[in-house]
Amino acid sequence: MITSSQNSKLKLVRALMGRAKERRAESAFVAEGVRLVEEAVNSNWGFRFVLYDETLSERGALNVKRLTSLGVECDEIPFSLMKSVSDTETSQGILAVLQFTNLPTLAPGASAAVPNSPTFILIPDQIRDPGNLGTLIRSADAAGVDAVLIPPETTDPFAPKVVRAGMGAHFRLPIVSMGWEEIEALVGTASHQTRQDESTLSGATQTRVMVADMEGESCWEMDLSKPLALVIGGEAEGASEAARKLASAKIKIPMAGKTESLNAAVAGSVLMFEVLRQRAENSE
Amino acid sequence: MITSSQNSKLKLVRALMGRAKERRAESAFVAEGVRLVEEAVNSNWGFRFVLYDETLSERGALNVKRLTSLGVECDEIPFSLMKSVSDTETSQGILAVLQFTNLPTLAPGASAAVPNSPTFILIPDQIRDPGNLGTLIRSADAAGVDAVLIPPETTDPFAPKVVRAGMGAHFRLPIVSMGWEEIEALVGTASHQTRQDESTLSGATQTRVMVADMEGESCWEMDLSKPLALVIGGEAEGASEAARKLASAKIKIPMAGKTESLNAAVAGSVLMFEVLRQRAENSE
Repeated sequence: MITSSQNSKLKLVRALMGRAKERRAESAFVAEGVRLVEEAVNSNWGFRFVLYDETLSERGALNVKRLTSLGVECDEIPFSLMKSVSDTETSQGILAVLQFTNLPTLAPGASAAVPNSPTFILIPDQIRDPGNLGTLIRSADAAGVDAVLIPPETTDPFAPKVVRAGMGAHFRLPIVSMGWEEIEALVGTASHQTRQDESTLSGATQTRVMVADMEGESCWEMDLSKPLALVIGGEAEGASEAARKLASAKIKIPMAGKTESLNAAVAGSVLMFEVLRQRAENSE
Repeated sequence: MITSSQNSKLKLVRALMGRAKERRAESAFVAEGVRLVEEAVNSNWGFRFVLYDETLSERGALNVKRLTSLGVECDEIPFSLMKSVSDTETSQGILAVLQFTNLPTLAPGASAAVPNSPTFILIPDQIRDPGNLGTLIRSADAAGVDAVLIPPETTDPFAPKVVRAGMGAHFRLPIVSMGWEEIEALVGTASHQTRQDESTLSGATQTRVMVADMEGESCWEMDLSKPLALVIGGEAEGASEAARKLASAKIKIPMAGKTESLNAAVAGSVLMFEVLRQRAENSE
């Protein structure tokens, strides 16, 4: 049992909870809660170690047992120490320090993590709210997105709140931090074509970049069955200049009321499920 | 300028921020931030008073000027006092105490606030997270919902975080707290009919109650063009027994990934916009 708050594992947890810089330096991040730890085990994710306290549920204890048998170090700590490091209001008595190793994402040559011919990419742009980013990642996983590309101005996808709101999607979906040049190289060069040019191209391998925008075309009228990358801008400033340059189309959700906008995570999710709907309809 | 933290207006703000009981006793609630206060002014909402500090933006100051000319008491308070009462991390230097008077909602005979022949009702059931409830209310306004019915087990829709996440939808949309008996009276008695019975009814005035459920029929296959009430259950426990008894159909969002569920606000929003899409398509 670890009892000192100056223990090196606890120090590492606090550092990883705090800053993206520390997560990158250590190539590790923290997942809190029974369900998340269980999802990580089920995904054969790389564990550094696990900390738990006496309040852990039976289901949590089963995971600790399983992890121990897999050779992962699992240490008990006092409830008060868990409470002091936890990022949640009511801790579930367990947290895991996980490796970045399963994530080619943050390493050089990150784009290797993206499937070869992605047909559905999500680009959350200038999303600053961790809850919104995590919710977008969770919805992306449910809507069949192939990869999530994180541009420089978006909050770190491995911050504790983002991982928690992702509800395990982080362990199933490639989440790739990259600069706009890399993104452009990956999704093609739609930016230098007029829309007319595009329609004369075969379009078979071309990924069309669409940015969510109130001034765009209705998502119900647009053909979303071809490969596409969907840019969702942040609530405060919308999508960045770089994203708008890359995009060849603006897409909007028609609205009935006087509300000018939706929550960014909601807007992105409604659009992602419209893509899924159209593709399901086409494949019938 | 108010400088004492024991001033009666500040005491009232703290009480209203804190508990639903206080809000009901005082028939008032608090809206924080420039945009919300502006939306309340634009909606001719009933104001008790406004507090602001020196950090208020020009746009905020214009609203204070407008309110003062309308006879609303607007008092300056020190930045430190604003910070101490604010529910936000970074206050925008303004908050308003608003009346419940425009809200027949919480008064007896609340159902009078619901339009006569509603065709689209949202029932957020056992939603405990204020951010999720506010986001659902915001989406409901955008998707053309006629009224939001709040059952007893859902968090108070006039708590500060809910109002903030609602982004002004509270001033445009009837939000009606009521018990399940009242809800049943309002949406009809679908619960006592089998689905076959229903299809033999004319259905013109019948509101069909649908509960979001992973085991339901696909929302893309169901006819959502007729009057309906949509129940969205909370993340922890889903929909209540009372809601399930009232519902005559289960509706699901088909998913592509391994994710079992969506964030409650996202699931509700995706379903509400599918209703809007089908109705727009039908009216073409």
